[in-house]
Amino acid sequence: MGPEEFRAAGHELIDWIADYRARIPELPVQARVAPGEVAGQLPANPPEEAEPFARLLADLDAIVVPGVTQVQHPRYFGWFPSNATLSSALGDLATAGLGALGITWQSAPALTEVEEVVVEWLRELTGLPGSWKGVIQDTASTACLVALLAARERATDYSEARGGLQAESAPLTVYTTEHAHSSIPKAAALAGYGRDNLRLIAVDPVSYAMRPDALEEAVEEDVKAGRRPAAVVVNIGTTGTTAVDPLAEIVPLARRYRMWVHVDAAMAGSALLLPEMRWLVDGVDGADSLCWNPHKWLGTVLDCSLLYVADPAHLIRVMSTNPSYLRSAVDGEVTQYKDWGIPLGRRFRALKLWFHLRLDGVEAIRARLRRDLDNARWLAAQVEAAPGWRVLAPVSLQTVVLRHEPPGLDHDGLNQHTLAWVDAVNGSGAALVTPSLLDGVWSVRVSIGAENTERSDIEHLWRLLRHAAATAEAG
Amino acid sequence: MGPEEFRAAGHELIDWIADYRARIPELPVQARVAPGEVAGQLPANPPEEAEPFARLLADLDAIVVPGVTQVQHPRYFGWFPSNATLSSALGDLATAGLGALGITWQSAPALTEVEEVVVEWLRELTGLPGSWKGVIQDTASTACLVALLAARERATDYSEARGGLQAESAPLTVYTTEHAHSSIPKAAALAGYGRDNLRLIAVDPVSYAMRPDALEEAVEEDVKAGRRPAAVVVNIGTTGTTAVDPLAEIVPLARRYRMWVHVDAAMAGSALLLPEMRWLVDGVDGADSLCWNPHKWLGTVLDCSLLYVADPAHLIRVMSTNPSYLRSAVDGEVTQYKDWGIPLGRRFRALKLWFHLRLDGVEAIRARLRRDLDNARWLAAQVEAAPGWRVLAPVSLQTVVLRHEPPGLDHDGLNQHTLAWVDAVNGSGAALVTPSLLDGVWSVRVSIGAENTERSDIEHLWRLLRHAAATAEAG
Repeated sequence: MGPEEFRAAGHELIDWIADYRARIPELPVQARVAPGEVAGQLPANPPEEAEPFARLLADLDAIVVPGVTQVQHPRYFGWFPSNATLSSALGDLATAGLGALGITWQSAPALTEVEEVVVEWLRELTGLPGSWKGVIQDTASTACLVALLAARERATDYSEARGGLQAESAPLTVYTTEHAHSSIPKAAALAGYGRDNLRLIAVDPVSYAMRPDALEEAVEEDVKAGRRPAAVVVNIGTTGTTAVDPLAEIVPLARRYRMWVHVDAAMAGSALLLPEMRWLVDGVDGADSLCWNPHKWLGTVLDCSLLYVADPAHLIRVMSTNPSYLRSAVDGEVTQYKDWGIPLGRRFRALKLWFHLRLDGVEAIRARLRRDLDNARWLAAQVEAAPGWRVLAPVSLQTVVLRHEPPGLDHDGLNQHTLAWVDAVNGSGAALVTPSLLDGVWSVRVSIGAENTERSDIEHLWRLLRHAAATAEAG
Repeated sequence: MGPEEFRAAGHELIDWIADYRARIPELPVQARVAPGEVAGQLPANPPEEAEPFARLLADLDAIVVPGVTQVQHPRYFGWFPSNATLSSALGDLATAGLGALGITWQSAPALTEVEEVVVEWLRELTGLPGSWKGVIQDTASTACLVALLAARERATDYSEARGGLQAESAPLTVYTTEHAHSSIPKAAALAGYGRDNLRLIAVDPVSYAMRPDALEEAVEEDVKAGRRPAAVVVNIGTTGTTAVDPLAEIVPLARRYRMWVHVDAAMAGSALLLPEMRWLVDGVDGADSLCWNPHKWLGTVLDCSLLYVADPAHLIRVMSTNPSYLRSAVDGEVTQYKDWGIPLGRRFRALKLWFHLRLDGVEAIRARLRRDLDNARWLAAQVEAAPGWRVLAPVSLQTVVLRHEPPGLDHDGLNQHTLAWVDAVNGSGAALVTPSLLDGVWSVRVSIGAENTERSDIEHLWRLLRHAAATAEAG
């Protein structure tokens, strides 16, 4: 496709996107297709001949839009905010249009240096230590794996990358809580620690935050048994309840045992743009790494995850490569992000962050985040004041975990009731919330923070929840 | 930013991209900025207020375009083709515009099912075994890491993810050649095998391909020493010389020792769209996994890497997670790509492949690939016929490795001469080629395959090379 064909099709697609975004509030939030329904509408064989662009647009309307859950919908309260701001989408378009190749500094100096500057802007905006350096990864899953790989190497004086973990006799152990994101045990397994060497530390029964005394006990027990504590993953805003592990109390303990402290603030990190929320990471200057995802609440379109480290040398010692065909005269003077993560080839992801911050402005982003925190507090107050309803966890961020508990239901009855009314809400298409297990019982997460969610949408949701619960109770 | 602002800015950006792409042939191929020059043009602090879109466009022109090496240039012959076709850029724009969230099938059924269909189209187009299943990863680096993690687990009856590699007494070993991409030893280190347990098998001195007899010897020696051969990475089209390891001879040996066979065809995989090039992967039906990158020669904009596996159960056993908040009623009936790789959150990458194939059509793509193979053969013939010039490796794909060898130069003199004329070519801005070490001596790689490279560009390049070499020889 040449530039003039692209120009014509591109204008059509821009209009299609603008129209689509404008009509999202009228679409059902949750996709209503059955398994195989989308695939069944696509031809079994690839096209030998070029197709006209109009046919692609028609398929976006007929097949793709009905086939996705509308996470940009103002009444999307599902898994977590996954905002794809249109300002960041423009930056992402610039990335594809430029078609730059990020393998070394030399292959695209601007790709590296815009990333350095923008990541530093966000470090400043979130109040992380001035000496820390950052890099964009795809997701928090990968960022945590990278951190645990660095931890593994530091704990063994960089011998694992040479001899392999199989050369070790004393197992390395990792600590977090059962409320950690599913990517944390996965990373511990992939990095070769083994799930058996991951300790899920007890949490406070009210706040669901890690108990430092229980951590200390577990670490001491492992040390006594000849194991070597290597890393602790501290959860700032868990997926289930946005619980906040007490970082400031964990850090001194971790330092005593020379453990790597990785802070997983994937969703909550956006809140650090608000000075009044910096308490979330009190003690962070004693940590080793922190990850948060602008592609969640902040709204930089997927995929964009920030990994900050106190000392990038740990990443570079583990990750660096130096084949002859990638060498250049300036290698000693520049940042080589290929040595800060797993992939060699990197997309120019910094552009979408750059566009996002510049086109929206930080003040407006802060106002939106504060709006969402306020909406969560408002909803929690309604729930707490309503007979038969309960807020199940502290509302320290933008998520409200709740349950309708009619009298006379046993454990199974309550679970059936909850899943029935949640299914009714989600099936209606009017809103999406997420059922999740808390202390072994089904609860409902309302994760507020879609870009276009206003107070009226929260009021609408609260009416929907009460109506669905009442109907389920009556039926 | 609302839909109407996006519409206005989007039209401007589309025009900017079309104009930029049209003027690429006039730009210097290699970026000419000094370290820090791009960063020095950006403000130290993030913008509190929203900026007008015109300022972003101006910065793209003034800062970003001069700050990237123009890999879409028709005389870009550097590292490897990194085509960002405009048809695929439209698909990528649709991805950002939709803003879908790929975490489970339920979160975006079309994201999963379009991926399943398009990946199957490409399986068929490349003649891979009909029973194999595929998934899109970001890069071949990650795909190889995923394969080696699966190999590690299969080799130990899935005990590593539980007990950790540190529980093992007999080390697992991995085999490849010194010509393997730098991401292969990196993956072996990250996966916990340890670099000491990676064997670089001797290659044929003419073809630079792995010698099966040397592989057999190394495997037998390891077995005798109590080590356990776990995986072999077979290189189909090495980065240095596009050497092709003899897969059909390696597979029976690997099966005998129950080793995982991962085929790294990152660049060369595109050639499999041509039936006459399928000999590259003779024997693949006995392998376990194969990776190739549509974001290279084929031209689907970064990042888009295809990982095919004979049995996805090996990935799922290692990678799957199942937190309560991600469960749905249809989990047993659908593909959950989150369990086929490292990240949980996935971009709707299939759209750019879908758009690319449909808007360009497979016939036209095949014609372009054949054009590039033909151009490489033509250039090799010119080089071979020119006095003082030499082709250093078989031209089995689109890369010509060459050297100008004036009489009377010793080893160091030859290296100085080569680097001098390559720097002159690259510094001129008229073309970009890559110096690389071959058998310890600097050579020059001409990697043909930019989307807009025609025979006239190859003729132009050949004049440039001869002129630069003659000037360096005279000077």
